[in-house]
Amino acid sequence: MTSKATDQKEEIQVKLEGMTPKLQQEIFTKIDARDQDAVRALIKPLHPADVADLLENLENADRDFVLDVFGKDLNPDVISYLEEDYLEDVLDRLGVGSVAHLITELESDDAVHVMEEMDRDEQMEVLAAIPSRDRAILVEGLTYPEDSAGRLMQRELVAVPPHWTVGQITDILRAGTDLPEDFYVIFVVDPKHKPIGVINLSRLISTKREVVASDIMEESFTSIPATMDQEDVALLFRKYGLVSAPVTDQDGRLVGVIMVDDVVDVIDEEAEEDLLSLGGLSSTSAASNLFETALHRLPWLLMNLVAAFTASFVISQFQVTLNELIALAILMPIVPSLGGNTGTQALTVAVRTLATREMRSENARRLVFKEAYVGLINSLCISVLTALVAWLWFKDLKLALIVGCAIIANMVIAALVGVIVPLTLSRTRIDPAVASGVFLTTITDSFGFFIFLALASLFLL
Amino acid sequence: MTSKATDQKEEIQVKLEGMTPKLQQEIFTKIDARDQDAVRALIKPLHPADVADLLENLENADRDFVLDVFGKDLNPDVISYLEEDYLEDVLDRLGVGSVAHLITELESDDAVHVMEEMDRDEQMEVLAAIPSRDRAILVEGLTYPEDSAGRLMQRELVAVPPHWTVGQITDILRAGTDLPEDFYVIFVVDPKHKPIGVINLSRLISTKREVVASDIMEESFTSIPATMDQEDVALLFRKYGLVSAPVTDQDGRLVGVIMVDDVVDVIDEEAEEDLLSLGGLSSTSAASNLFETALHRLPWLLMNLVAAFTASFVISQFQVTLNELIALAILMPIVPSLGGNTGTQALTVAVRTLATREMRSENARRLVFKEAYVGLINSLCISVLTALVAWLWFKDLKLALIVGCAIIANMVIAALVGVIVPLTLSRTRIDPAVASGVFLTTITDSFGFFIFLALASLFLL
Repeated sequence: MTSKATDQKEEIQVKLEGMTPKLQQEIFTKIDARDQDAVRALIKPLHPADVADLLENLENADRDFVLDVFGKDLNPDVISYLEEDYLEDVLDRLGVGSVAHLITELESDDAVHVMEEMDRDEQMEVLAAIPSRDRAILVEGLTYPEDSAGRLMQRELVAVPPHWTVGQITDILRAGTDLPEDFYVIFVVDPKHKPIGVINLSRLISTKREVVASDIMEESFTSIPATMDQEDVALLFRKYGLVSAPVTDQDGRLVGVIMVDDVVDVIDEEAEEDLLSLGGLSSTSAASNLFETALHRLPWLLMNLVAAFTASFVISQFQVTLNELIALAILMPIVPSLGGNTGTQALTVAVRTLATREMRSENARRLVFKEAYVGLINSLCISVLTALVAWLWFKDLKLALIVGCAIIANMVIAALVGVIVPLTLSRTRIDPAVASGVFLTTITDSFGFFIFLALASLFLL
Repeated sequence: MTSKATDQKEEIQVKLEGMTPKLQQEIFTKIDARDQDAVRALIKPLHPADVADLLENLENADRDFVLDVFGKDLNPDVISYLEEDYLEDVLDRLGVGSVAHLITELESDDAVHVMEEMDRDEQMEVLAAIPSRDRAILVEGLTYPEDSAGRLMQRELVAVPPHWTVGQITDILRAGTDLPEDFYVIFVVDPKHKPIGVINLSRLISTKREVVASDIMEESFTSIPATMDQEDVALLFRKYGLVSAPVTDQDGRLVGVIMVDDVVDVIDEEAEEDLLSLGGLSSTSAASNLFETALHRLPWLLMNLVAAFTASFVISQFQVTLNELIALAILMPIVPSLGGNTGTQALTVAVRTLATREMRSENARRLVFKEAYVGLINSLCISVLTALVAWLWFKDLKLALIVGCAIIANMVIAALVGVIVPLTLSRTRIDPAVASGVFLTTITDSFGFFIFLALASLFLL
C-alpha cells in the first residue's frame, strides 16, 4: 500500500513535470555535447507540450541548437504550446520557410494565435509562403479584433442541412477527407448557413440511420458573435457549462466553433491579469530579462512614490503638533496601514466581482453599502484594541481616543474608496484592477495621516 | 451597421445576464404578488444556470416561495449551478425527499458535488432515500478525498474491449439504454478493466464498420489517479490541452472520466483563492452576511495591527532623534511604503509562478536572484528621485542621502522577503498566498522605519 502510494505520488510528479528529471538531465548532457542524433532521438517521442517546456528552459544558444536539429521536422504543435515570449524567438530562429510549413499543419485557431505574435512584415512574408487556401483562412482570422471570439474560434467544423439522415451524415463523415482533426458536435444550418441546431456526436452515434438531423438536434444553444470579447466568451462558457458553441458573423452565418479547451487558457490568462494588476505589475514572465522586468514594475513604484510624497506633505502641515508630542510620530503609521489593508480587501472583492460579472448596476449600490458596513464593523474592533494599547503605552486617554477615532474614519473611507474606485473605472475603458491600487494608497495614506494629526492638533494641544 | 452593432451588443448583454432586465422585473413582480402559476410559467423555460442566478438574487422568503412552487419539479440541474453558500439553504428548504429525487437525476459528478455540501446526518438521510444502485455510486464518490480527481470525475462512461469492431460498438450504442447523457470519447480496456486506449467519437464515426477498436485507438493518453489533487488535474489539462482523461483507481482500473468543462471551475476557483489570499481575504461571497464577512476579514486586520504596532515600537526607539529633526517624521513613511510596494510585486510573481508550477527547485534560486536584482535596479531609480525631492524640500544633502540609502536597503530586502517567504512556505503545508502578505508587511514596515531612523541617528545628529 505505502509503496504503491509513493509510486503513484512519483508518477504524478513525473507527469506534472512532463518528463523525469533523469531524462531531462540526459537531454541537457547531449545538448551540451552538441550530439544531434542523440538529441533528436531523445526529444522526438516527447509530448509537444513537454518539448515546448524544454525549449523554454534552455539558454538561447542551446535552444537554437535544438531548433536547428529539427527545423521543418519540428512537431507543429510544439509552437502552439510555447509561451508568447519564447514564441517570437523560436519563430525568428526557424525562419519564414519552416514557419510557413509548420503553420499549415496547425488547426486554424492555433495558426492564427501563432501569426498574432509576428510583426506585420513577418506576417506578410509567411502568408506569401503558404498555399492560398490556408492563407485565406488565416487572413480572415486575423481580421477579427484581438482577443475576440473570431480569433479564438476554429474554422474547421461539420455543418449539415436539417433534412439529412443520420445514415447520410455518417456516410459523408466516413468518406470525408477534409474533416477537422477532432470534433465533438455537428451543426445543423439553414440554407443561409445560419445555425439552427446542434447535434452532439454521442447523440448522433447512438441514433438509428434513418432518423433525420432536425429530429435529434438540440435547438436551444448559445451562439457567439465573432466580435464578442474573449473574456465574455469565457464567462458564457462558465455560466452555462458549455462544451462548445457556434460562432456567427454579423449576418448570423456560422463561421466557426469555440471549444471549452480553447476557453481554459482565456480563463487562466484573465485571472492572471487581475492578480498581477492588483499586485502592481503589468506582466510576469520568466522570459523577460532583468531590465525589462524592472522597467515594467517601475511605473507602479513611481506612482507609489507620488502617493508617499503626498502623505509626507500632509504630515509636514502638522510640524508644530508633531514637535509638541513625539507620541504622535510613533503612532501615526498605524492609521494609514490599517486603512490600506481594509481598502485592499474591499478592492480585491470589487475587482473579482466585476471580473465575474457578479456585480451589475442593480446590485452595485448594495455592494458599496455592504463594504462600508463591513469596514465600520471591523474598524470598531480594531480601534478599540488600538486605543487600549495606546492608552497603556502612553498613559494618555485623549491620545488613545484620537487614534481610535482616526482609525474608524480612515477604515470606513478606505472601504468606500476600495469599492467605488474600481466601480467607477469599470464604466470607463480603464481596467479597474490596474489603476485602483494607486488611487487607494494615495487616499488611505494621506487621509490617514491627516485625520490623525488634525484631530490631535484640535484636541490634544 | 450601427444599429446592427448595437443590437449585437445588447444581445451579448442579455446573454451574459441570462435574461432581460424586463423579464427579471416581471418575475420579481409576480413573486411579490405570490402568483404561483405566473412564477412557474415565467421561470420554467429559463436555462437552469439563469434559474440558479435568480435564486441567488432573491431574499430568503422569496427564494423559499419559488422553491415551494417547484418542489420536486425543479430542474435538477439548477442545484448543480448554485453557488455553495446558497446550495445549503436551498437543500434545507427542499427537504430530504425532494433532494433525494433531484440527486438521482443528476450526473454522478454533480450529484457528489451536491452531497458534499450536506453535513453527515443529512447525507445519511438522503442516501437512505435513494435507490440502492445510485446510492452505491454516490457512496463510492464520497470515499475519495475532498478536492480529488475522484470527486471531480463522472462515473458514467463507455468502455469496450479492443477486439470489438466499429460496427459492433455503434450497434451497442444505438441499442444502449444506460448511456451517459453526453460523452466525447470511448475507452478501450483490457480484461482487467485497465484503460489501454482512447477513441475520440469523431474518429469512431468517420471510420468504416469493419475496423477493429484497437486499430483506431489512441494509445498515448494521460490517465489520472483518482486520488490526484484537483489542482494538479487542472494543471495537467492545461499543460497538455486535454479535452478528457480517464481516471484510474490504485490498481490502475478505469473508474471514471474527467472532462475539460469540469476542470474549468477548478481553474477559476484556484485563481480566485490566490487572488483573495493576496488581497488579505479568506473568501468572498455575496451570500455571507455582513458580520460573517467582517469576521472573515478581521484576522488579516489583526495581524496587520500587530505589524503596525511593531513598526511603532521601532519608531519609539528613536524618539530623541525624531525630536531633534521633524523632517524625519515627515519623510519616514516613504521608506516602508515603497518597500511594501516592491515586496508585493515580488510576492505576486512568486505566488503565481508557484501556482502554475513554473517555479521548481531547479530555478528557484534563479528567481530569488532575479527579484533581488530587479529590486536593486528599481531602488536605484526611486532613491535618486526621492533624494532629489528631499534635498530640494529640506535643503539638507545629508538627509537626502540618508533617505535614498534607506530606500535602497528596504526595497532590496523587500524583494528578497517577497520571494523567499512564499518559497519557504510552499515547502510546508501552509498556502503561500495566505500567509506571506503579513510577514512581508511586518518586515518592510519595521525594517523601513528602522534603517531610516538608525542611519539618521548615526550620521545626522
